[in-house]
Amino acid sequence: MVDVFRHNAAPYPASGAWFPGDPVGNRKFHTFATDRPFSLEGGGSLRDVTVAYETWGSLNSDASNAILICHAWTGDSHVAGVTGVGHTTSGWWDGVVGPGRAIDTNKYFVVCSNVLGGCQGSTGPASAHPDDGKPYGLRFPVVTIRDMVRAQAHLTDALGIKRWHAVIGGSMGGMQALEWAIIMPDRVGALVAIATCAEASAQQIAWTSIGRRALLQDPAYNNGNYYDAGPDGGPWVGLSTARMVAQVTFRTDSRFSEKFARRFKTLNFNSDGIELFSEFEVEGYLDHHGDKLVRRFDANSYLYIGKAMDLHDVGRSRGGVAEAMARIKAPTLTMSIDSDILYPAYQQEMIHNSVKNKDPRNAHVTIESIEGHDGFLIETVAVGAGIREFLGSL
Amino acid sequence: MVDVFRHNAAPYPASGAWFPGDPVGNRKFHTFATDRPFSLEGGGSLRDVTVAYETWGSLNSDASNAILICHAWTGDSHVAGVTGVGHTTSGWWDGVVGPGRAIDTNKYFVVCSNVLGGCQGSTGPASAHPDDGKPYGLRFPVVTIRDMVRAQAHLTDALGIKRWHAVIGGSMGGMQALEWAIIMPDRVGALVAIATCAEASAQQIAWTSIGRRALLQDPAYNNGNYYDAGPDGGPWVGLSTARMVAQVTFRTDSRFSEKFARRFKTLNFNSDGIELFSEFEVEGYLDHHGDKLVRRFDANSYLYIGKAMDLHDVGRSRGGVAEAMARIKAPTLTMSIDSDILYPAYQQEMIHNSVKNKDPRNAHVTIESIEGHDGFLIETVAVGAGIREFLGSL
Repeated sequence: MVDVFRHNAAPYPASGAWFPGDPVGNRKFHTFATDRPFSLEGGGSLRDVTVAYETWGSLNSDASNAILICHAWTGDSHVAGVTGVGHTTSGWWDGVVGPGRAIDTNKYFVVCSNVLGGCQGSTGPASAHPDDGKPYGLRFPVVTIRDMVRAQAHLTDALGIKRWHAVIGGSMGGMQALEWAIIMPDRVGALVAIATCAEASAQQIAWTSIGRRALLQDPAYNNGNYYDAGPDGGPWVGLSTARMVAQVTFRTDSRFSEKFARRFKTLNFNSDGIELFSEFEVEGYLDHHGDKLVRRFDANSYLYIGKAMDLHDVGRSRGGVAEAMARIKAPTLTMSIDSDILYPAYQQEMIHNSVKNKDPRNAHVTIESIEGHDGFLIETVAVGAGIREFLGSL
Repeated sequence: MVDVFRHNAAPYPASGAWFPGDPVGNRKFHTFATDRPFSLEGGGSLRDVTVAYETWGSLNSDASNAILICHAWTGDSHVAGVTGVGHTTSGWWDGVVGPGRAIDTNKYFVVCSNVLGGCQGSTGPASAHPDDGKPYGLRFPVVTIRDMVRAQAHLTDALGIKRWHAVIGGSMGGMQALEWAIIMPDRVGALVAIATCAEASAQQIAWTSIGRRALLQDPAYNNGNYYDAGPDGGPWVGLSTARMVAQVTFRTDSRFSEKFARRFKTLNFNSDGIELFSEFEVEGYLDHHGDKLVRRFDANSYLYIGKAMDLHDVGRSRGGVAEAMARIKAPTLTMSIDSDILYPAYQQEMIHNSVKNKDPRNAHVTIESIEGHDGFLIETVAVGAGIREFLGSL
C-alpha cells in the first residue's frame, strides 16, 4: 500500500548541484545588490542577488529588438533549446521561440531570466545565505511578483536595454509582464499576457494553499531545513502531492477522460478482485508528474513562488486594479484558453477590458483547446499565431 | 508557521464514541449476515453487518409510500432533524425533507441509512472486527456502491418494503440510487439522481486520489491503526488536507470570489509587512472545513468510501454503461447544478439520455446556481421544487 512513499527514493539532485553559481549550459548570471540591500515589497531585503538568464539572437545596435519572456511557477530561463547540464528539461516554449518561429530569434534578441525566489540559477531559498554560506531555507524573505520584476530590471539595465520591444508571459509569467507594464510603462513597448490574471482569485489561492499545506505536513520538510538530508531525506512526498493538486488544475476533465478514461494501472477489478490501494491510470499520471517535479525543483522555492502568486494583485497600494491597469501604455495582447479552469477566460477578458490606453493594436485572442491552463504551453501553433500577428502589428 | 499543525489538538471523539452500537438519538440499527458471510463485489466478505438508519413519517398498510434517500461521501442517515447525541450535525437536507416539504413526511415514509463502510452507525473500518473486537482498520474489505445498495436491500426487506416509491440521492447518493434502479429495477418505483454520474471520470478519480494520498502521507495514519492514538494522535492533518481538496471542488470560483475576495485572515500586507505563512480568508475557510470533518469523520471511512466512488461504474460486468442504463424501469428525474465543476452537468444529461424506458415522466432539470456541486445540498428551494413536481407526476 505504501506505493505513495516511493518518492522517498527519488534521485533528487544533491544539494546545490544545480543551484546558483553553476557555470553550466549557456546560462549567464548577473549579480546585483552587492553594495546595498535589495529591498523587497514585503519588508525584507536581500544582498548579493543573482539573476540567471539565457539569451537567443542578437541585440541590435540601438537595443530596440529585445523581447523579455517571463516564466511560470516551475519554469526556468530555458525557454528554448535542448536538455543538458543545468537544463533538466528541454525548452518549455520551443514551438514558439526560435529561428523563424513566432518569437523569431533571427529578428529579436530574446531574454528569459529565472525568477527571484527560484531554484534554477537565480537567488532563492536554496541559495547560500551570504552570512554563513548555508541555504536560506525559511530565512529567505517573502518575494512578490513586483520584486521579481524589479530584479529583472537590474538585469535589463546590465544588458543595456532601455526599453523592451515586448514583454511576454503566460500564467505567472503573465503576472510579471503585467507588473512590468504597470511599474515601468515607458520601458515596455508591447505586452503579451496569456492565461493569467490581474489579481489572484480566492479559488487560485485555495489551490496554492492546499499544495503548501501538503508540503508542510511532510515531516521531512523539517521547517525548511532539508538540504543536507540527502536524496532520500527531503519532503518529496509532500512536494509531489502539492504538484498533483496543481497538475489537475492545469488540465481538464475532458482531456483526462480522453487520455485515461477509467483504465486501471494496477489491478483489474474483474479478474483479480480489488484492493484499497490499487490505482487507475490517471493516478499513475499524477505520480509521474509529482516525481518529475521532485527531481528538478526545490520545495522551498515552490512555497515562496506559490506565495508570490497568491499575493499577486496589481491593484495593491495603487488604488485598485482599475487604476493600476490605467497606467499601462503598451499595446496589449491578452490570450485565453477557453477550457482553462485555473485562470478562466474571464480573467484575461477583464485585463483586456481594463487596459485604457485605446491603442488600436490591443487585442484579445481566445484559443479553443481541450488542454486547459497548460494550453499556453501545449498549443504552440495557436499561441504562436496570436503572438506573431500581434508582433507584426507593432 | 505551524498553524497547519494545530489540527493535532482537535477534540476528535474518543475511539468508538459514536461508532456502531451506540443506542443514541432516534437512530435504529439493523444487523444481518449473522448466519453466513455477506459477500462483496471486490472479493471480500463481512459478517455481523449493521446498518444504521433513521425514518420519518409512517409506512402505510401496503408499504407503498416509502422513499429511500441515499447520502453522499461524508453524509449520514440524519437527513432531517436537529443536532444531538449521535448527530453531530443537523439534518443535511432539512429544507427538502419534512412535514409539508418536497419529500413530505406527512405523506411518505422516509428512510435513510448510513452506508456500508461509513462511520455513523453502520459497519465500517472503525467498527469492531467480530474476531477480536478491535477496529477493522485496513482489514476492512473494499466495498463498492453496489455493496452499499445490497446492504440497504437487507434493511429494505427487514422493513417489509417490497418496492420503494422512490429512491433519491445526490452525488454519491445518486450513484446508489442509480445502482438500485439497475440491480433491482422492480423494487424502485421512481429514481431521482442529482449531481451524480454513471461512472466516475478520470478527473474525479484524480481528486479522490490526491486526498487519499494526503491522508496516507500523514505519519499518524500509521497504516490505519490510529484508533488508540487518543485525541491528539490521529491523522487529522492528513484528513483535513484531503477534505480541503474536496471542498474546493464542491464549490466554485465565483462563489469563493464573492465570499472571500482577497481579504486577509491574518497579516495585512500593507501595514504589517508579510510573512510566508500568513493566510487569506479563504484559507481560514478551508481550515474550518478540514477541522469540522476531522471532528466527525473516521479517516479510514473517508478512504474506503472514496475508493467506492472511484470504482463506481454502472457498466462494470454489464457490457458497458449503455446496457446497464437500459435495465432501468423507473421513471427518472435527473438534476444538474449548472456550476458544478466536480460532477459537471453533462454527466447528468448523459444519464437522462441513457434511460431507455421511454417513460413520459422522465425529466431533466438544470438548476442555475453559483454554489457548484454543493448546490444539491444548498439550493433546497430549487431542488425541492424539482423533486416535488416529479413526485407529483408519479
